[in-house]
Amino acid sequence: MFVNHTITPLSSGMASLVAPIPLLATVEAEYSPIVLSGVLLSLVVIYLASKLGAEVARNFDFPPVLGELVAGVIVGVSALHLIVFPEAGLSASDSGIMNVLQLINHLSPAALTSIFESQSEVISVLAELGVIILLFEIGLESDLRQLKEVGIQAVVVACVGVAVPFAAGTAGLMIFFHTAAIPAIFAGAALTATSIGITSKVLSELGQLKSKEGQIIVGAAVIDDVLGIIVLAVVASLAKTGEIDVVNVIYLIVSATAFLLGSILLGGFFNKTFTGVVETLKTRGNIVIPAFTFAYFMAFLGNAIHLEAILGAFAAGLVLDESDARHELDELVKPIADLFVPIFFVTVGARADLGVLNPTVPDNRAGLLIAVFLILVAIIGKLVTGWVVFGQPGINRLAIGVGMIPRGEVGLVFAGIGSASGVLDKPLEVSIIIMVILTTFLAPPFLRIAFGDSVEPPATEESSKVI
Amino acid sequence: MFVNHTITPLSSGMASLVAPIPLLATVEAEYSPIVLSGVLLSLVVIYLASKLGAEVARNFDFPPVLGELVAGVIVGVSALHLIVFPEAGLSASDSGIMNVLQLINHLSPAALTSIFESQSEVISVLAELGVIILLFEIGLESDLRQLKEVGIQAVVVACVGVAVPFAAGTAGLMIFFHTAAIPAIFAGAALTATSIGITSKVLSELGQLKSKEGQIIVGAAVIDDVLGIIVLAVVASLAKTGEIDVVNVIYLIVSATAFLLGSILLGGFFNKTFTGVVETLKTRGNIVIPAFTFAYFMAFLGNAIHLEAILGAFAAGLVLDESDARHELDELVKPIADLFVPIFFVTVGARADLGVLNPTVPDNRAGLLIAVFLILVAIIGKLVTGWVVFGQPGINRLAIGVGMIPRGEVGLVFAGIGSASGVLDKPLEVSIIIMVILTTFLAPPFLRIAFGDSVEPPATEESSKVI
Repeated sequence: MFVNHTITPLSSGMASLVAPIPLLATVEAEYSPIVLSGVLLSLVVIYLASKLGAEVARNFDFPPVLGELVAGVIVGVSALHLIVFPEAGLSASDSGIMNVLQLINHLSPAALTSIFESQSEVISVLAELGVIILLFEIGLESDLRQLKEVGIQAVVVACVGVAVPFAAGTAGLMIFFHTAAIPAIFAGAALTATSIGITSKVLSELGQLKSKEGQIIVGAAVIDDVLGIIVLAVVASLAKTGEIDVVNVIYLIVSATAFLLGSILLGGFFNKTFTGVVETLKTRGNIVIPAFTFAYFMAFLGNAIHLEAILGAFAAGLVLDESDARHELDELVKPIADLFVPIFFVTVGARADLGVLNPTVPDNRAGLLIAVFLILVAIIGKLVTGWVVFGQPGINRLAIGVGMIPRGEVGLVFAGIGSASGVLDKPLEVSIIIMVILTTFLAPPFLRIAFGDSVEPPATEESSKVI
Repeated sequence: MFVNHTITPLSSGMASLVAPIPLLATVEAEYSPIVLSGVLLSLVVIYLASKLGAEVARNFDFPPVLGELVAGVIVGVSALHLIVFPEAGLSASDSGIMNVLQLINHLSPAALTSIFESQSEVISVLAELGVIILLFEIGLESDLRQLKEVGIQAVVVACVGVAVPFAAGTAGLMIFFHTAAIPAIFAGAALTATSIGITSKVLSELGQLKSKEGQIIVGAAVIDDVLGIIVLAVVASLAKTGEIDVVNVIYLIVSATAFLLGSILLGGFFNKTFTGVVETLKTRGNIVIPAFTFAYFMAFLGNAIHLEAILGAFAAGLVLDESDARHELDELVKPIADLFVPIFFVTVGARADLGVLNPTVPDNRAGLLIAVFLILVAIIGKLVTGWVVFGQPGINRLAIGVGMIPRGEVGLVFAGIGSASGVLDKPLEVSIIIMVILTTFLAPPFLRIAFGDSVEPPATEESSKVI
């Protein structure tokens, strides 16, 4: 096909220069059942933590995803050291899982290190597949037709809600904390997201989902998802090249937007192909395999054109959401997402070393100040969006602003990708995670207060008539 | 908890002796988006191959799993070189996927080698998770109550169908081909399996599923699954230690049987716990996460007591099959299995280098003879089972024997695990795979002939009255 199988003299010559790597591979092949044991045990710990965390959070009426994140912090580098990764300078003996394997198999330190590397690599890729599947599912759930209906108010709220925290966060970090440009831009970008899931759940509990405020918030949150993923793709790409070049930034913004719009436009054509393929296939997995082949291919494409895998997965979800097989597909993707997504949330928590913000250590004061600053910008930057709504006398501006505050899973995607790409230093990464946790914890009670102070919760029928 | 987080001076001292490995980790962290790209592209190729293969096989009325295997051979080391693994002495430049990544990212040979290792490790673990999930699903589908009903005839057929090919295969390899004891035992063990799926599908098409012959075949195939997995666990464990010690063999047989029986007995208790847990949990994944936590933990346990991960997964499936939530669980496991299992079948095919049996190369003649020998033993060893049925005058003995021939997915599990553990040399591994392919291809037409020659296909109602 399109590949060249010949071993050129150059590459075989170079291969002999990297002797330690084939040596390591031999160690890995010999110990592959132990790598598998390590992966299985890690997954057991991750799943137990995620379910315990989610259920406890739910009992206190907080979003389950926060419980999974906090459970990840507990099993991770900050506390129990069960799930840790080598990139933080930790060795195999710091990992609880590795100590268990050591106990069972009596391994040499070199073998244990090799197994630790392999196991961490596999769990990292599983977590990345988790966030790809998460964004694929968010894409499947984002209804593009809804976007056409939300109107100009939601667009204005969304754009202000992206621009203000991004500008204030980036500028503040650079001016007050002398953060380098790229990490500052990344942290600023992490402030832009709005979690549609958390807000719409609380709105629906308050019977406000169909109110004018509710409609503006949900519409703006949907646009925020799309804008946020474009911002993330651009910023993560900047982080890879390590330099900010106006031409490159413009290229990235144009290419990310074109990628998303192009996918959606081509989607109309691809939908019929997809439905046709699903109907033609007669063997097991006739819907799941074509859907994931498409999602993974789009994710690969997103990576290959130096944007982000999740942008591709999100675009794939948007496209397939238009297909006739979408209801069946939604049902089939759910258990797969249930199995993969917690790996992402728990490992984001597990990688976050809260110790870097321990206030008793004097060196940590600067990091703590950054965390406080990010939280303030995160809250104020979204609160102001309520006051840009125009031509709507008597609208609850505070409620709209508060409704935009929770960052939720999308904020965590920023933290996770920033951490994996190495662009964020530890204090900045942990500050972003704490910002996500706090905004997400605070939004539901604040939203209740904001609505409770001004309007009585109307019955659902009445509120839908208001529209 | 139960782990020790202290870095002892010994282990940190040793860490400095293995400097190349942390260096490699740095390379890996830097290139982790490219590893992800490699994994995504590999999965796209694997999924496209699996679906094309399955559909083509189905069109020719062959089992889809064979199509997936053959498609794996085509994309693997035997032909297109898209999916290859480093353990066969192949370097990154032999991999089609790596050549694509190289073209996009302009990597150094050292970086490419490191990415190739990581990507192969991840795909290998995904394939191992695939076979774990396959056995979990087979366990979920094996109805233990059915086992009690099949009667003594099925037990005799199953035991003879395990013992004869095992003994003849092992002894023949050692005597005629001077194969070492452990690979010979492993290859003999690979001859024991019977694929219940393929046989029962053909029986049902012939309207013979409820006939006396059909009932004996299906019952024996179910028992074969259980016996085969115990044999595999014992043999794979022997392969790990590398020596045959009577005490150890007895220990392994007893422990594998005890593990399986113990799980099933404890299962009665665990079922209620599982149903209780499922009912208590209120967040997403309330069935999937507990089920897979249990399956992965049992697989880990199977590995930890030096048996096999798949034995644990199979036991977990048997246990949860008794639970009240099993119908829901079956539905939820399906899309997950659809996504993971093809990775296993395609990579088994991709790893098999058919070139080692190329008849034009004189050195390959011995390997070819082994393949022919294994195929003959595989067919004759199961054919004889028809003649051990007693007290059933007029029964179609040929049909029973032919019905036991197809090895299908369980045979591939043997080949895959034998190849991963390194106990099988290339010609023996490929011979087993060809034996599996041929027995599985031949059984459906032979079964039609065997039944067509002696009985007219009766209507389903009549045939069920025969019982």
